[in-house]
Amino acid sequence: MTNVRFDVITLAPQAIFPLRTLGVIGKAFRANIAELYIHNPRDYAEGNYRKVDDEPYGGGTGMLLKPEPVFATVEALPIIEPRRTLLMSPQGKLMRQADLQRWANTYKQLILICGHYEGFDERIRILADEEVSVGDFVLTGGELPAMLIINGTTRLLPGTLGKSECLTQESHSHSLLEYPHYTRPARFREMEVPDVLRNGDHQAIQLWRTKQQKLRTVQRRPDLLSHDSNDN
Amino acid sequence: MTNVRFDVITLAPQAIFPLRTLGVIGKAFRANIAELYIHNPRDYAEGNYRKVDDEPYGGGTGMLLKPEPVFATVEALPIIEPRRTLLMSPQGKLMRQADLQRWANTYKQLILICGHYEGFDERIRILADEEVSVGDFVLTGGELPAMLIINGTTRLLPGTLGKSECLTQESHSHSLLEYPHYTRPARFREMEVPDVLRNGDHQAIQLWRTKQQKLRTVQRRPDLLSHDSNDN
Repeated sequence: MTNVRFDVITLAPQAIFPLRTLGVIGKAFRANIAELYIHNPRDYAEGNYRKVDDEPYGGGTGMLLKPEPVFATVEALPIIEPRRTLLMSPQGKLMRQADLQRWANTYKQLILICGHYEGFDERIRILADEEVSVGDFVLTGGELPAMLIINGTTRLLPGTLGKSECLTQESHSHSLLEYPHYTRPARFREMEVPDVLRNGDHQAIQLWRTKQQKLRTVQRRPDLLSHDSNDN
Repeated sequence: MTNVRFDVITLAPQAIFPLRTLGVIGKAFRANIAELYIHNPRDYAEGNYRKVDDEPYGGGTGMLLKPEPVFATVEALPIIEPRRTLLMSPQGKLMRQADLQRWANTYKQLILICGHYEGFDERIRILADEEVSVGDFVLTGGELPAMLIINGTTRLLPGTLGKSECLTQESHSHSLLEYPHYTRPARFREMEVPDVLRNGDHQAIQLWRTKQQKLRTVQRRPDLLSHDSNDN
């Protein structure tokens, strides 16, 4: 029983393939918690050269992804409702954890369109329900952003992670950063694990961790405290 | 003549390998513009089981990356100055384009430490010059963030992209989003390329594009207008 089907549309399919076998996300694909399909618009391009890009109108450097092969690729996909089409775009809305949760909770099919590294024809935008940016930085394409989305969404699907606590104790789920973690050895190169974590007083441990979360968030990410977790 | 050497420290080396062959970044590695080395802390772990993780002090779910194998891995690396060690961490500073530019312009060696998906021992932090978060969302590990950094930094290195204009006209370089791009066909499914882009009046095209950039930024990312491009 598959929870979500991902369809990635990309000119660099070999970039995405490794996701299917890697770590805890790979296990989710092998267990059919999620399915991953990858489609190359070049396979849907016409003419002897299967041309997928062309020069920009009005001049400028760089080649642009043409609309026809991308439309043809999307239209060749099976339809599983509810579905959502996401366009990877530096002009999109900044992705946050609440978006991953919404996609994981709502849709059975997520279509991810990766842009060409030099840009794409404006008309491709109408294929998308949402345009997504993963951050204010520039990459050579939408493949890594698509992989972030697949990773972050799949890990939220029931069955991917072992224990549900792992999902609720983590950074960005409650607008607070995580508390410091320590494991053995108790002393490593003059650095010791705080006493409170070693004395077995669970109430004291809980108080210390909550205080550390607040302290760390104030010091490192005060902006997280100034809005709700669902704010965008 | 290599510009930057990347050393990635990760328990999932197979996640990173494909970067070396992919697209324009792969070309940069083949041209020795950048070098990519991948190191597994498990190879530096001791004992028959080469144990790299252990239970958290004070209780809680999940296994934590131990400090010893990570320190041993970092200390086994050659040193190329100037170097910088980045720790992938959801508690880090939010990465922006100015960070990628700074790393590309300043360092000959970038060491990227990927955390374990359930967390890492607090003492590992002292190995890092900077802790980096790529966004307010949760992933299963630091491998995809490290790949973002390698991709975004390498594309800024001289020689990676063909024309220097590509680097200056893009989103997030000037706190304004990109203008809409169009390529052929002039008409596709009732959607036409704007006349201004087809009449050859370069001054009019420039005016239209500047106006579209401002309009798009106001509509989609007004926050980008409220601070400088170097603001964090």
